[in-house]
Amino acid sequence: MSGRVLQSFPRTAHWRGGLDGCLVLIDQTLLPTEFKEIECRDVESLWEAIRSLRVRGAPAIGVAAAYGVCLGMQRSTSGDLESFFRRLHEVCDYLATSRPTAVNLFWALDRMRRKAESMRGSPTPQIAQALLEEARAIEEEDRQMCRAIGRFGAELLCDGQGVLTHCNAGGLATADYGTALAVCFAAHEAGKRLHVYADETRPLLQGSRLTAWELQQRGIDVTLICDSMAAQVMREGRVQAVVVGADRIAANGDTANKIGTYGVALLAAAHEIPFYVAAPSSTFDLSLASGDEIPIEQRDPREITHGFGRQTAPEGVKVYNPAFDVTPARLIRAIICEHGVIEPVAEQNIRQMLQSNHPV
Amino acid sequence: MSGRVLQSFPRTAHWRGGLDGCLVLIDQTLLPTEFKEIECRDVESLWEAIRSLRVRGAPAIGVAAAYGVCLGMQRSTSGDLESFFRRLHEVCDYLATSRPTAVNLFWALDRMRRKAESMRGSPTPQIAQALLEEARAIEEEDRQMCRAIGRFGAELLCDGQGVLTHCNAGGLATADYGTALAVCFAAHEAGKRLHVYADETRPLLQGSRLTAWELQQRGIDVTLICDSMAAQVMREGRVQAVVVGADRIAANGDTANKIGTYGVALLAAAHEIPFYVAAPSSTFDLSLASGDEIPIEQRDPREITHGFGRQTAPEGVKVYNPAFDVTPARLIRAIICEHGVIEPVAEQNIRQMLQSNHPV
Repeated sequence: MSGRVLQSFPRTAHWRGGLDGCLVLIDQTLLPTEFKEIECRDVESLWEAIRSLRVRGAPAIGVAAAYGVCLGMQRSTSGDLESFFRRLHEVCDYLATSRPTAVNLFWALDRMRRKAESMRGSPTPQIAQALLEEARAIEEEDRQMCRAIGRFGAELLCDGQGVLTHCNAGGLATADYGTALAVCFAAHEAGKRLHVYADETRPLLQGSRLTAWELQQRGIDVTLICDSMAAQVMREGRVQAVVVGADRIAANGDTANKIGTYGVALLAAAHEIPFYVAAPSSTFDLSLASGDEIPIEQRDPREITHGFGRQTAPEGVKVYNPAFDVTPARLIRAIICEHGVIEPVAEQNIRQMLQSNHPV
Repeated sequence: MSGRVLQSFPRTAHWRGGLDGCLVLIDQTLLPTEFKEIECRDVESLWEAIRSLRVRGAPAIGVAAAYGVCLGMQRSTSGDLESFFRRLHEVCDYLATSRPTAVNLFWALDRMRRKAESMRGSPTPQIAQALLEEARAIEEEDRQMCRAIGRFGAELLCDGQGVLTHCNAGGLATADYGTALAVCFAAHEAGKRLHVYADETRPLLQGSRLTAWELQQRGIDVTLICDSMAAQVMREGRVQAVVVGADRIAANGDTANKIGTYGVALLAAAHEIPFYVAAPSSTFDLSLASGDEIPIEQRDPREITHGFGRQTAPEGVKVYNPAFDVTPARLIRAIICEHGVIEPVAEQNIRQMLQSNHPV
């Protein structure tokens, strides 16, 4: 892989073929040493792919889940409308159990349900076709959303700056261009020379495996550090901005993102470095007043004790492994979404930005 | 290993035999899955053992280096006094190149030099014997020092508290009982029930491999977390004190310790949790006005990119891998040394504590 620089960035999750086609995913667990696409031909294999992080990143999970609904309905168009909708809700409910924190998953499933409901009078093959078109629209909108986030966010960065990011909010976390990394990509494309510091992001190393790889592929200067080095890198004056993605944003701006993000936000505050969140509007969950209500996924202790192909902790040791944490709005300078920059981060500004662009 | 709880804690670095004996080290790179002692029979193998972290931890490096001088002098007692001292300085200078940050290394080597110089009139076999006794004294003093630190530090912890530690400042980092962990051990022995959170401490995982293991061996409740989880654990109110070791402390109290310590100190400050440093007087370097003057070791990028037997970052990626950082004195509530508790941390208090106990 290492020598080859990809000319066009690959699609994280896309559909191959017609109604009887399949979902093609980049298997992100194999990167950076192997670039391999896998085909999901049923909803169970997609569920496994989401749970095991072959596809991950809030927007990408949304795209994949939308296509997952199409997979789940492939053998259900011959029956009556009632059984079609029963199956649809089964499939959506099942996919919704794959991961609890990223709201884009539920957002995409809801949107697919609503699409089908809006066509309740139509023949089921026609609804199935509309569902596939809806999933494709979600993917395409995600692509456009990423570019808009990139454009808005790039304005916040200056030539020569150091930027720190945590986890992977890149092309691999979305349809193809990213959220936090889109900001870097767009700034780079606008001629700004950035030095990006990528936190490796234990336990699953999305920073070293995915973010460092994406930046390298795009020719952006990237330096890999351990999570524990972020404070020192800030202290040495190497970082002028922090940009991260999000898995769910509450109405007040509190933001759930990969574990470690909250710590990075505190460190940025201590060094007076602006901390930005980049995320599409589908990441907002206005039904939650604050981040306290966001469910946090707990993952397998073995991610920490056996994460690198060998045992690195004593047998039987207790482990705490939350996959996400919540960064309070007060630590976030601005949220960059596809409609613009929300600053300061406050409920009124969030509702205004989302409502003025999504009239109910 | 897992099932066996050690009855008495093993010695990290000790001498076996007489003048023609050897230095026995626990090979810490094999823990926690294998407990193995290795014999160093020449100074070169000890240098390699220090460089490759088979023995690590500032006080333990000091003990090992003192014995290393004995190893280096084993075949040098038949010549004249001049060549004996030439060789002595060669050996000390060579061992001093093994690692740059921990001052205990230089402290122990200086003490060995001074011992020999104080006996310049004596026959060389007698000086060699005195050097072995001096190294044994350093080890024994370290053992006593650890227990004194434990006694003083235990007073600062209360029953039922959560304590977070970073890296390993345990028995394995000293002759046998630790500095930061001595505080936990002594509190535990005094009947205080602690919940210790051990940062795994990337890149080399001294927290998961060594600290979790030591605490487990001693029957103390320990939970392993990734470094990136410390902020969340603090936010959830699980931690009431942070205790870490030190590799070098400047005259003003600025403290060099394992990379990530500075970040933990900032996070503790943000959560109003007291942050303590536990270290013997040999860790102080009063010749340095502040932490800015402490040399920071840069280590091999492969510790980050290939740390666990497989490649976890793209080929050729840039890496920044400082082994230590410096925590400014203002973030340290108190420094616990074998003579007592230095609080507040200020140059005058440090000099007073060290001078009143070590009259020149």
